[in-house]
Amino acid sequence: MSARVALLMGSNSDLPKLQGCLDTLKNLGVACEVRVMSAHRTPEIVSEFASQAEQRGLEVIIAAAGGAAHLAGVVAAHTILPVIGIPVEGGALNGLDALLSTVQMPGGIAVATVGIGSGGATNAALLAAQILARKDPALREKLLEDRAKRRQKVVEADQELRGR
Amino acid sequence: MSARVALLMGSNSDLPKLQGCLDTLKNLGVACEVRVMSAHRTPEIVSEFASQAEQRGLEVIIAAAGGAAHLAGVVAAHTILPVIGIPVEGGALNGLDALLSTVQMPGGIAVATVGIGSGGATNAALLAAQILARKDPALREKLLEDRAKRRQKVVEADQELRGR
Amino acid sequence: MSARVALLMGSNSDLPKLQGCLDTLKNLGVACEVRVMSAHRTPEIVSEFASQAEQRGLEVIIAAAGGAAHLAGVVAAHTILPVIGIPVEGGALNGLDALLSTVQMPGGIAVATVGIGSGGATNAALLAAQILARKDPALREKLLEDRAKRRQKVVEADQELRGR
Amino acid sequence: MSARVALLMGSNSDLPKLQGCLDTLKNLGVACEVRVMSAHRTPEIVSEFASQAEQRGLEVIIAAAGGAAHLAGVVAAHTILPVIGIPVEGGALNGLDALLSTVQMPGGIAVATVGIGSGGATNAALLAAQILARKDPALREKLLEDRAKRRQKVVEADQELRGR
Amino acid sequence: MSARVALLMGSNSDLPKLQGCLDTLKNLGVACEVRVMSAHRTPEIVSEFASQAEQRGLEVIIAAAGGAAHLAGVVAAHTILPVIGIPVEGGALNGLDALLSTVQMPGGIAVATVGIGSGGATNAALLAAQILARKDPALREKLLEDRAKRRQKVVEADQELRGR
Amino acid sequence: MSARVALLMGSNSDLPKLQGCLDTLKNLGVACEVRVMSAHRTPEIVSEFASQAEQRGLEVIIAAAGGAAHLAGVVAAHTILPVIGIPVEGGALNGLDALLSTVQMPGGIAVATVGIGSGGATNAALLAAQILARKDPALREKLLEDRAKRRQKVVEADQELRGR
Amino acid sequence: MSARVALLMGSNSDLPKLQGCLDTLKNLGVACEVRVMSAHRTPEIVSEFASQAEQRGLEVIIAAAGGAAHLAGVVAAHTILPVIGIPVEGGALNGLDALLSTVQMPGGIAVATVGIGSGGATNAALLAAQILARKDPALREKLLEDRAKRRQKVVEADQELRGR
Amino acid sequence: MSARVALLMGSNSDLPKLQGCLDTLKNLGVACEVRVMSAHRTPEIVSEFASQAEQRGLEVIIAAAGGAAHLAGVVAAHTILPVIGIPVEGGALNGLDALLSTVQMPGGIAVATVGIGSGGATNAALLAAQILARKDPALREKLLEDRAKRRQKVVEADQELRGR
Repeated sequence: MSARVALLMGSNSDLPKLQGCLDTLKNLGVACEVRVMSAHRTPEIVSEFASQAEQRGLEVIIAAAGGAAHLAGVVAAHTILPVIGIPVEGGALNGLDALLSTVQMPGGIAVATVGIGSGGATNAALLAAQILARKDPALREKLLEDRAKRRQKVVEADQELRGR
Repeated sequence: MSARVALLMGSNSDLPKLQGCLDTLKNLGVACEVRVMSAHRTPEIVSEFASQAEQRGLEVIIAAAGGAAHLAGVVAAHTILPVIGIPVEGGALNGLDALLSTVQMPGGIAVATVGIGSGGATNAALLAAQILARKDPALREKLLEDRAKRRQKVVEADQELRGR
Repeated sequence: MSARVALLMGSNSDLPKLQGCLDTLKNLGVACEVRVMSAHRTPEIVSEFASQAEQRGLEVIIAAAGGAAHLAGVVAAHTILPVIGIPVEGGALNGLDALLSTVQMPGGIAVATVGIGSGGATNAALLAAQILARKDPALREKLLEDRAKRRQKVVEADQELRGR
Repeated sequence: MSARVALLMGSNSDLPKLQGCLDTLKNLGVACEVRVMSAHRTPEIVSEFASQAEQRGLEVIIAAAGGAAHLAGVVAAHTILPVIGIPVEGGALNGLDALLSTVQMPGGIAVATVGIGSGGATNAALLAAQILARKDPALREKLLEDRAKRRQKVVEADQELRGR
Repeated sequence: MSARVALLMGSNSDLPKLQGCLDTLKNLGVACEVRVMSAHRTPEIVSEFASQAEQRGLEVIIAAAGGAAHLAGVVAAHTILPVIGIPVEGGALNGLDALLSTVQMPGGIAVATVGIGSGGATNAALLAAQILARKDPALREKLLEDRAKRRQKVVEADQELRGR
Repeated sequence: MSARVALLMGSNSDLPKLQGCLDTLKNLGVACEVRVMSAHRTPEIVSEFASQAEQRGLEVIIAAAGGAAHLAGVVAAHTILPVIGIPVEGGALNGLDALLSTVQMPGGIAVATVGIGSGGATNAALLAAQILARKDPALREKLLEDRAKRRQKVVEADQELRGR
Repeated sequence: MSARVALLMGSNSDLPKLQGCLDTLKNLGVACEVRVMSAHRTPEIVSEFASQAEQRGLEVIIAAAGGAAHLAGVVAAHTILPVIGIPVEGGALNGLDALLSTVQMPGGIAVATVGIGSGGATNAALLAAQILARKDPALREKLLEDRAKRRQKVVEADQELRGR
Repeated sequence: MSARVALLMGSNSDLPKLQGCLDTLKNLGVACEVRVMSAHRTPEIVSEFASQAEQRGLEVIIAAAGGAAHLAGVVAAHTILPVIGIPVEGGALNGLDALLSTVQMPGGIAVATVGIGSGGATNAALLAAQILARKDPALREKLLEDRAKRRQKVVEADQELRGR
């Protein structure tokens, strides 16, 4: 099955922080291409990848970066596929710089930004799946199941707490 | 033509700040349902709207709110449609509170957040269209044209500046 | 004795951070119902709970959440009971997001917000008791004793320091 | 009718920013004593007022201040009445200093903090009324009416927008 | 020798963070009275202490507190002695709240604020000594020696580094 | 009468923002030397001025600067006179940069920092006078009068408000 | 004379904010090529420009952008010429986003960042000239003259103030 | 070979945080003079060093400091050599104070600021080399090699990740 989603990260040191994204995509059965590429160190690879993404069959691109996080914005500049940006936690400002660098895009080029940290990584995967589900009824079902499971987990935590 | 996108705002006083969103959707020929509803003052209307949005044929929901901006998060809690959050500029903290209240969602319920202010409003419309374009080749063409126009505007500004 | 106060938390992982709230309520003899429920993962449980809280005999609701903390605001939208919000410390922004998401409510729906962290959790309990004490003279006495004990602890620390 | 609520402000220049608080209390029929007193310029008046508030029949104290806003905290130190703090907008940091100075109280002395600005002022009044309503069925009815009116206003704004 | 400087802290848990202040005063031979008192838990002790400080022979008061740090401001409200405020590091906001609560005083009541953390604690002691030295030539000499030692330490660190 | 206090500013455009400082010193009868000098544009004038200040009879130096405000710190590096820093409001960050650049001094060289804005300017003057008053009984009386006037102004504002 | 410096801006609406940069370069006699190009709307023009800049004889590139300011970083990714970034003031966050997006570059690709606002624009020009002056003795003289003029202006403002 | 670059730090405790700067300069074969000197504790050494730097053959000065970081600004005030500022991570505000104190220089005296932390230290070295390379073709080649290596490292990380 060819990948419909790509997850790009600026550095492979970010991989552990993105595990929730990969796990969630896997659980939902969404094939994902994972790549390390940098808006600053391999700019031509990024622009080539983003320019060709649509014709290669990708439907959503997730880009994760920290600090002056330009990756998602640069990818979005080269494609009309939906681009999801994950601001990576860490550094002296702990991701606030990455959040602002990702979300405050000028009018005309959009990046769908999720939260800093592991919750954001999970949500990037869910958001990608929600977009794909618009034309994939099976994936839609899986998303509903995912919601139900998350709901159930809270209900069980509640029951456990009340039972104490 | 029935609306595929809904734009929700917490207060009609936000309408002028969202004009760029409506204009962009109109330019792209995307029908949009505009509604005023509040996560705090009309919570049951919000949950009912969000719960029924998918079966009513909506495909993307855009929610704009300021301050402790809960609207997008509450909508996202009731639907698996992609939800785009616009943090509305204004108030003492000028939208920083709205940004953090919109983007820092817990893992499991995603909001695709765009920037604070008019650029963000425009980008919410583009993002919605980019999602819809995944199964709408005509809209895809319009997005490419929009990109080309924005590119052309920069090129012309450059030429004008150089000609001085 | 049926509970007059409910403490809601978005995730049971927050329980240790809220221990000071539970301990303080217990010390003051205020019966408390503790629940895990999420504005995003179990929204209908939250709205049902909040809507029925008053008729079930609750008098004050304390809601604790982190990140884009919507729980207190959503509860407040469904009841006219006083709602106290505890912004839970943690995450990349260490609770600043939770503080702003909890306190910056729009005019019309109030959340009584306390500080981020363990001091805030204790103060949420005290605030609930201060509200209840308006019609409970015995609780009023206990609050005065609590104040006296806290005062005494500072006086003793002062004496100990001066004695060194 | 003797006042059950007091609204204290550090400077009479803050009065216009607090009009929403006074109007809301008036609409709800809650008698309010309005006073100018400063934690820094008239500290003994503040401590005397706060110490005697309960025996004078007050039930809730609202304290509004800007900058290094100490008024609510100092009042709370002298009474076990519920104290509501309004961080006043303005100054170079536009109220962020007032918010943190009001909300980040140490464990033991609670201040129920509302948002910066006019929404916060309105909510301080509502919160005071919600506390009083615990033993005042007529006020409880007025709060339900207030909620209904605010709900209705959003519904009408929605209808007006949809009718365009 | 009776103390000319008092160091007040809101909680004895802050003592280790203030060691640099005590050590510096000791090195300079400035007698210091150390006290634990809280603007919120023992307000009347604070106001009594501050009101009587001058007649008891104190010349400078240093007040250290964290969070919504009101101690220095409340002390300053009760005396015309110079009051130095140390914002104590710690808590979710790591002292930024303490800094703003200490420094953003309204016109009329001044607090001489030093930096957050151990550098600030040392500087509070130096500042107190610099004030006292205005009428104490021996202390003035000690301050000059302290400066010379600090200078020498940098010069030696430089020589060591260059010698590697 | 030769000046005991100097007020230094980095730019004469800051003069209007410092009027409260000059007025307060004048009201208290404290002679003040006002100078424009810049840590960056006239560094040698600053270091010469600061080095000679004490022998010229100055007792306190007030330094006001905005942005990366280095003036107070550089002055403090060249004298053991007490140095008071006023962070000047303005610029994109509205004085937050000036506050942090002024207050966060390393251990060893202290700057007594007051608040951003007009309140801070007034307080710098008061603080200087409070330091001088340690050996000037007449000035001490004037400070007590200033306090009494400020107290009276609040009392009158309170009476006026209550009389309405 | 062919340009040795290029000033790039993301939008021609930023031109007035950059006038100080152009004026300073002109005063110093440094020929400058001014261009409008956008990292997001004309990415291929930016990468082509930056890639060819050195062989076209440019020696320093100044890039100005606001919001999620990616322009300087993207230019720096394509050249080893020194790149100076100006964070443009404006928008809801008033340039703080632009500052962090410009300065927090990952190790490997440097951007020499100057301050937000008009001072920063002037300093970008000076910095470019200081770099060029390393091999241009005439420009070095002009920089010394510029310094002397700025020094003289402060001295004159000081004399004027003292003469009043 | 005499040093063309100087790296100044306010305290030798900062040395480990600056190792990336020294390593990068060494890798590029750029001789560097490393010095400990403090804008506050050894101001006259700083001003003497900066004033004589150019005639001693230095071409670029890198200055690293934390907190109220004045070192780079003070150096820049005494030389027209390009000055690069590294805001050192650490302290309660984790380098945000150092960033603002370094970058927000007034118009007229420029500091080329790099990011907080280890990436910034590396980039200071690269920036210095990029400036020197304007008249040093061999260094220019080394910079191109450094770029190629960094690019290659990302490509290899990408291949490794894809191969898993």
